[in-house]
Amino acid sequence: MGEVKDSSFSTAPGWSCAGSSCECEPGFRMVSNNGGSSVVCEKCPENMSGVTQDGWNCIKCPKGLTSEGKCKCLINEVLVERSVDGVLLNEALCIRCNGSEPSFSASDVLGNRCVRCEQTFVNVSKSCDCSSPNILTGGLCFSATESLPPKAIATVRFGQIGVTLTSAWFLKNLQASASACWLHSNLTACQALGNMCVMNMNSLSSSSTDACGLFQYIYANTARLGIVHSIAYWRHNLPWLYYGDQPGLASQVLETNHFPTVFSFKGKNKDIKLQFIAASYDAAGNFLQWQSLEGGILQLCPDTQTKLNAAYVFGTTYEQSCKISVSKILLDFPNPIFYDLFLEYNGDNGQQYLWAVPVLNLDLQYREMYVNQGSNMNNWLLTRRFFLVDALSGKENDMGKLPRVIRVASKISISIRLVSHTQRGNIYPPLITIAYTDVLVQNPDTQSVMVSFSVNYEMNQSEAQIQTDITLGVLGGLAVLWSLLKTAGWKRRTGSSVIDLQAQQFVSVFLPLPSQEKAFVTYIACAFSLKALQFLQLLVSQLTIDIFFIDWERPKGKVLKAVEGKGAVKSAAAPVSIWRTYFIANEWNEIQTVRKINPVFQVLAVLFFLEVVGFSNLALMDSSSSLTRSSDSYMAPWSRILRFGVSAALWLAIAFLQIIFFAVFYERFVEDKLNQFVDLCCVSNISVFILSHSCFGYYIHGRSVHGHADTNMEEMNMNLKREAENLCSQRGLLPNTDGQTFQISISRKMRLQYDRIHETLTRRRGPARFLDSSANTFEQSTRAYNAMNKFLSSFIDHVHKEMDYIVKDKLLLERILGMEFMEPIEKSIFYNDEGHSFDDVLYYGNETTLLIFDILFFSIVDLASQNFVLAAILTYLQQEIFRFIRNTVGQKNLTSKTLVDERFLI
Amino acid sequence: MGEVKDSSFSTAPGWSCAGSSCECEPGFRMVSNNGGSSVVCEKCPENMSGVTQDGWNCIKCPKGLTSEGKCKCLINEVLVERSVDGVLLNEALCIRCNGSEPSFSASDVLGNRCVRCEQTFVNVSKSCDCSSPNILTGGLCFSATESLPPKAIATVRFGQIGVTLTSAWFLKNLQASASACWLHSNLTACQALGNMCVMNMNSLSSSSTDACGLFQYIYANTARLGIVHSIAYWRHNLPWLYYGDQPGLASQVLETNHFPTVFSFKGKNKDIKLQFIAASYDAAGNFLQWQSLEGGILQLCPDTQTKLNAAYVFGTTYEQSCKISVSKILLDFPNPIFYDLFLEYNGDNGQQYLWAVPVLNLDLQYREMYVNQGSNMNNWLLTRRFFLVDALSGKENDMGKLPRVIRVASKISISIRLVSHTQRGNIYPPLITIAYTDVLVQNPDTQSVMVSFSVNYEMNQSEAQIQTDITLGVLGGLAVLWSLLKTAGWKRRTGSSVIDLQAQQFVSVFLPLPSQEKAFVTYIACAFSLKALQFLQLLVSQLTIDIFFIDWERPKGKVLKAVEGKGAVKSAAAPVSIWRTYFIANEWNEIQTVRKINPVFQVLAVLFFLEVVGFSNLALMDSSSSLTRSSDSYMAPWSRILRFGVSAALWLAIAFLQIIFFAVFYERFVEDKLNQFVDLCCVSNISVFILSHSCFGYYIHGRSVHGHADTNMEEMNMNLKREAENLCSQRGLLPNTDGQTFQISISRKMRLQYDRIHETLTRRRGPARFLDSSANTFEQSTRAYNAMNKFLSSFIDHVHKEMDYIVKDKLLLERILGMEFMEPIEKSIFYNDEGHSFDDVLYYGNETTLLIFDILFFSIVDLASQNFVLAAILTYLQQEIFRFIRNTVGQKNLTSKTLVDERFLI
Repeated sequence: MGEVKDSSFSTAPGWSCAGSSCECEPGFRMVSNNGGSSVVCEKCPENMSGVTQDGWNCIKCPKGLTSEGKCKCLINEVLVERSVDGVLLNEALCIRCNGSEPSFSASDVLGNRCVRCEQTFVNVSKSCDCSSPNILTGGLCFSATESLPPKAIATVRFGQIGVTLTSAWFLKNLQASASACWLHSNLTACQALGNMCVMNMNSLSSSSTDACGLFQYIYANTARLGIVHSIAYWRHNLPWLYYGDQPGLASQVLETNHFPTVFSFKGKNKDIKLQFIAASYDAAGNFLQWQSLEGGILQLCPDTQTKLNAAYVFGTTYEQSCKISVSKILLDFPNPIFYDLFLEYNGDNGQQYLWAVPVLNLDLQYREMYVNQGSNMNNWLLTRRFFLVDALSGKENDMGKLPRVIRVASKISISIRLVSHTQRGNIYPPLITIAYTDVLVQNPDTQSVMVSFSVNYEMNQSEAQIQTDITLGVLGGLAVLWSLLKTAGWKRRTGSSVIDLQAQQFVSVFLPLPSQEKAFVTYIACAFSLKALQFLQLLVSQLTIDIFFIDWERPKGKVLKAVEGKGAVKSAAAPVSIWRTYFIANEWNEIQTVRKINPVFQVLAVLFFLEVVGFSNLALMDSSSSLTRSSDSYMAPWSRILRFGVSAALWLAIAFLQIIFFAVFYERFVEDKLNQFVDLCCVSNISVFILSHSCFGYYIHGRSVHGHADTNMEEMNMNLKREAENLCSQRGLLPNTDGQTFQISISRKMRLQYDRIHETLTRRRGPARFLDSSANTFEQSTRAYNAMNKFLSSFIDHVHKEMDYIVKDKLLLERILGMEFMEPIEKSIFYNDEGHSFDDVLYYGNETTLLIFDILFFSIVDLASQNFVLAAILTYLQQEIFRFIRNTVGQKNLTSKTLVDERFLI
Repeated sequence: MGEVKDSSFSTAPGWSCAGSSCECEPGFRMVSNNGGSSVVCEKCPENMSGVTQDGWNCIKCPKGLTSEGKCKCLINEVLVERSVDGVLLNEALCIRCNGSEPSFSASDVLGNRCVRCEQTFVNVSKSCDCSSPNILTGGLCFSATESLPPKAIATVRFGQIGVTLTSAWFLKNLQASASACWLHSNLTACQALGNMCVMNMNSLSSSSTDACGLFQYIYANTARLGIVHSIAYWRHNLPWLYYGDQPGLASQVLETNHFPTVFSFKGKNKDIKLQFIAASYDAAGNFLQWQSLEGGILQLCPDTQTKLNAAYVFGTTYEQSCKISVSKILLDFPNPIFYDLFLEYNGDNGQQYLWAVPVLNLDLQYREMYVNQGSNMNNWLLTRRFFLVDALSGKENDMGKLPRVIRVASKISISIRLVSHTQRGNIYPPLITIAYTDVLVQNPDTQSVMVSFSVNYEMNQSEAQIQTDITLGVLGGLAVLWSLLKTAGWKRRTGSSVIDLQAQQFVSVFLPLPSQEKAFVTYIACAFSLKALQFLQLLVSQLTIDIFFIDWERPKGKVLKAVEGKGAVKSAAAPVSIWRTYFIANEWNEIQTVRKINPVFQVLAVLFFLEVVGFSNLALMDSSSSLTRSSDSYMAPWSRILRFGVSAALWLAIAFLQIIFFAVFYERFVEDKLNQFVDLCCVSNISVFILSHSCFGYYIHGRSVHGHADTNMEEMNMNLKREAENLCSQRGLLPNTDGQTFQISISRKMRLQYDRIHETLTRRRGPARFLDSSANTFEQSTRAYNAMNKFLSSFIDHVHKEMDYIVKDKLLLERILGMEFMEPIEKSIFYNDEGHSFDDVLYYGNETTLLIFDILFFSIVDLASQNFVLAAILTYLQQEIFRFIRNTVGQKNLTSKTLVDERFLI
């Protein structure tokens, strides 16, 4: 059911069928015809062997038959089968038309009526005869006595594929239209001539006999005709093809004047659209219509109306490209259409004006040079008229056949250039740049052409570039000064004389227009590498700090111990439990990588706002500031600068909110790791002594106010309760103060003493020596630990008069600059510290560096990949990897510096 | 420069201009014309006031002038201005054509020649006259004596907008084409009649005088003509419009036979494409061409060739929709084109066949009912011919004006239905479903129509549905059994008789074709809610476990203490430091939410593979299995089932790899938190006693092999070293064993004792009582702590003979089922545990539940939002929130159960 065999109709004598309709064969007349295959035919008698034009009757033919079996007459004759009143003749007549005045008649195209002949025949010969010496060309007759334009050559050159062919169209029309234009200033002929010049790419060669040569010849010799609309290049009756060939004219046309109206991105007024309109002509020079470019007139790639029209919304960078098969091009553009483009605008008086848009044809040759392909605007030769597809000039012999070569406007680009120094949307006159592609037609179904259409918004960035460079130069200089200052401070702190480079550079300039992205990418890359350097330096310095936990606990007394083997009882100093130190070390180890923000949440929140909420749409190169795009609206390309701007802004905003949240809510009501640690020090009767540089560091005073902490739960709880009820003294290092944390600047003597003890502690890490049993090093290090503990606690207790210290406040300027003015020559200096500045040796105190590093890392990945998801995932991985390194190496450092076994740092 | 004023050409007497071309006014003849505005005219003399048709001469007119100033003649007359040989006459002639035999001539359309008149005139009247009683209609002449079809009504009804109008086209052609079809079986007339029926939506009403009524009348009365291609519904010379109106015929047409060729998704053969071809006709019934549907013939929305042709790749679900303005529709489709659709295929003998594709017109009315809009296939009335846009039938009076109403095929859908029970791509005959939209043309520029085109692949899912239901039923039953078993075990463990529901259900059925997604979404939603229930139950049970840290440390001896105030020395038991318990509690607190995988990495890795690598492209409804799509290829819609499949498979694969990585590498070489904890217990001389249910729990034996752990660094290091060198006894609970971890099943008596002590410990959490000073509760809880410590350590030491325990291995079946067969009536039972099954009370031991919960959560969010990024971010947030809850509440529970102050759990 429903099955059909592919078959053609069968044929029977007397009639034949093609497709679905049948007709009688030559020599047969129709008797009846009901359409389709129901045709009845009848053979004509011998004496009337012809068939009438309508096919229903037989007739005698005076001058023989055509191949279809109808009568034929000579050229210039008309075939008459019926009398004037419709009576059918027995024998057809072949009648020569009367060509003399006043009839001036000749046979029409079909050869069945006499009609008035072409006016040029009448003009030249006062008859319908154009015999020698008059010249017949292109259906027109020219007198030999008139001054004709030079003899034209009808070849068309397709430079890209190296083909030069004699065009049938040019052969028929070039000389005629040039002559008609030259002699009679015939508008249509002049347009047709101009179109042929445009099909020749407006190329002006030194030999002046091609289409453009003829056009220029006529243009040069018709100055008397006057100009149109006071435009010097627009000769009356001629099409406007060129802007003249003086050097530097292009920049004068494009940059001397502003476009006389201003555009805006938003609003209800008309100036948010670029209202291009085009006058269109066919190849023969007939004016077709004025039409708006909206609706995709110039856009060869198919798309929905909405997306096509988005090209002309002011501020929307538009790009469209696709591949189109040659067969579709041939089908859609059998005849070329020529466009003269204008931009419509409103004058101050409310009247509408048109601005002629110049064309930069990249394939134009001027004296055999592609002058428009260079970037030097002074060499450019601007033109006016252009076409989309020319499948006409490439036809060689038969106008009815496929062309040998077609030419397609494969790259059309409209550029709108903003005027610098104005804020109001002033633009220079727009420019349309066209590149054509020549295609040798071989197999239209498999061949295809890549075409593109774009609208670009440009701006002279040299000024912005200079300003950015100056800004970066000044900021960079300040950064160098700052780093020198930092280095000076660092030099004092370490006592070293080695200077290494450290700079901070954060580019947060939001460029107003998306061009010169390369320079921008360079800035970001520089910023990133410098920040990465700083980050690595931070990491290394944190991984090599000196740290020691001072245990203040002293044995509570003697312990009565049963001596092994004997029944006697012996008294020994009660051992001080090491578990509090373990606890502190364990906690210190855990706060190494605590940050002021949650970095994973940060990354995911940024991703959420970019990809889910749609902030990424703000980085599209259009004027919309909406976060959503409907699926059927045009998606402009991404701007890398805007992507950076949007993502960096989001990073900063979310980080700011997170810091606020953690500082105001979380650390106050849920958990504050750093203060917990300081409290724990105090409860466990252990101080922390940190040297981040040789002679600079931090001190957390953790001496228990209860004297003892190494006790059972009962006493611990009691202690905690007493403190909660304010029954104890205050925790501070100085009596009656609360200050538990200090920045310390220690004297060189103190440092030497520290190093001396430390050396014995770390010696066992050195290469194994002969006869050095591990037990020995083991005891040695325990001794060193005890010595260090004793030395540091006595130092804090002011026991060593030659290595004493004073406690003072930091000056405001010292705090701001982060360096100390006073050198600790005689005495070490303890600076009071309101916060917990020891977090400088943790991630916690370096949030700014980490955050900026993350932002730049995210941005670098995004600039390279244009993929926020990838950037987010890699940023997370980077955080995890560095956190792992920081934790693992930091733990090793902690073990080596404090002697706490690594197995307790879990 | 370049500025043009918008202006029209000025007018001068004698000639007028429109657009860019000018012509002489009536009464003026042309003297010269060079195109454009260069026209010279001359007034005709009074006695020759007419102008010839060519405009160059003046002539005398016998019967007056037209408004253009030319001669006019009566209808039926021809205007003669020149003699046969072209000589211009002084006075034009109006000549009546000879209509009698054998000339049969009448004036042509332009009225300037006599030509043979229409054949029907000749047939009927043997002249060119169709006077009464003969009937003239539509330019045809019918004899009154012939049996004409019934008188037709020329109205067209547009049901959607409630407009019925008299169509100019119908008025002119309906009766004529019906008559010509009926009397002469004229093919074109029959096609034209058929087209009018199609324009009437093929509707068959009880009144049989509209286009379809006439068609059916002719169809019913021309059975003698025979049928075409042995198709019963295709009458010779008539178009094939209907499949007949027997009930149930539609399902017979659509489902009785398979389509005779098979298709495949991949390969080089032709059968990966659906090769639709269409025969097209114009409204007048002329056959136009055969054409392939490729190239977007039926796709009204513009798109690139590649994307348009993707519709016909077998297996690609295609959807396209857009809004088109009415003005564009009117421009592109001035005349309707009618299509008969076929699907081409190769027969076994290599010959090509066509299969007629039936049309389901949703707007067809059969006896005033929209029979095709129901889902009951037996009521459907299938048709054949359709059109895309009909802007013809809606023209009311003037055929040159805009139509009042247009009809657009706004929803075209081709459905390919796979035959069940075959694996080879057998399909039923395809069906094309069309819904038309009627548009009242008011303002074409602002009006628009939503159009869509789709290709769907369907399959009878009832079988799959039943199978899925059975599978789910069986699995669900098993899950219920399993949960009952679990409940029984749980009941034994808790000794409770309350039963609550717990089930496990994980749907991982990959449905082969993306339909009935609703049922699938329901399954996933059910699975998610049940899994969420289980997860919450897990969370609650973990948050309420009983736990106690048993400190084995005993005082080392007496401490000699100076009594306050007096000089005497007193000896007291040396306090056992609580810091080891703090350390253990702190670590226990930290391992609460450790997982076998890194959940954040998991989420981001899944996102990476989905969005960056491009696995999400596997969820597109096409046959490609490539991970990338070029930007210019068609993007098929998403399948929610495939999205679930791809994402769940990725989750499982990545989770599996992570588990492998952590188990094989990380925990072995970097860090194994759980074993570290067990080791730490042993080093710190503390056991952990956990009761996850009333009478079931876990025990970690942490008694130090050195007897003491509360000592200084020297001794600790010594102990660790001795153990490393295997100089100590083994750590196990039983002598000479290593087993440190046990599952315990305690007797009811033991539990009662535990509760009794515990009550005093937790009483202080109750409401504050009068006169109950905090010091009292404080001391009480410390006492309870000591009592509990003493009780549990003596229990482990077998001190209580009435509450003793035995150690045994678990049976294999007990392990598999996760329950104990033996009830601990007399003695408690300690089951040896090779791993660390105490992780059942941590996140660590419940990885499967957590993972599946995460997968289902991710999938649910994705099903709802179709956004993997959002799903990933919300999954992360969910993980964080539950982890926070687990940590915070778990910490509170730990504090309350072990008396360790919360401030030490940092």
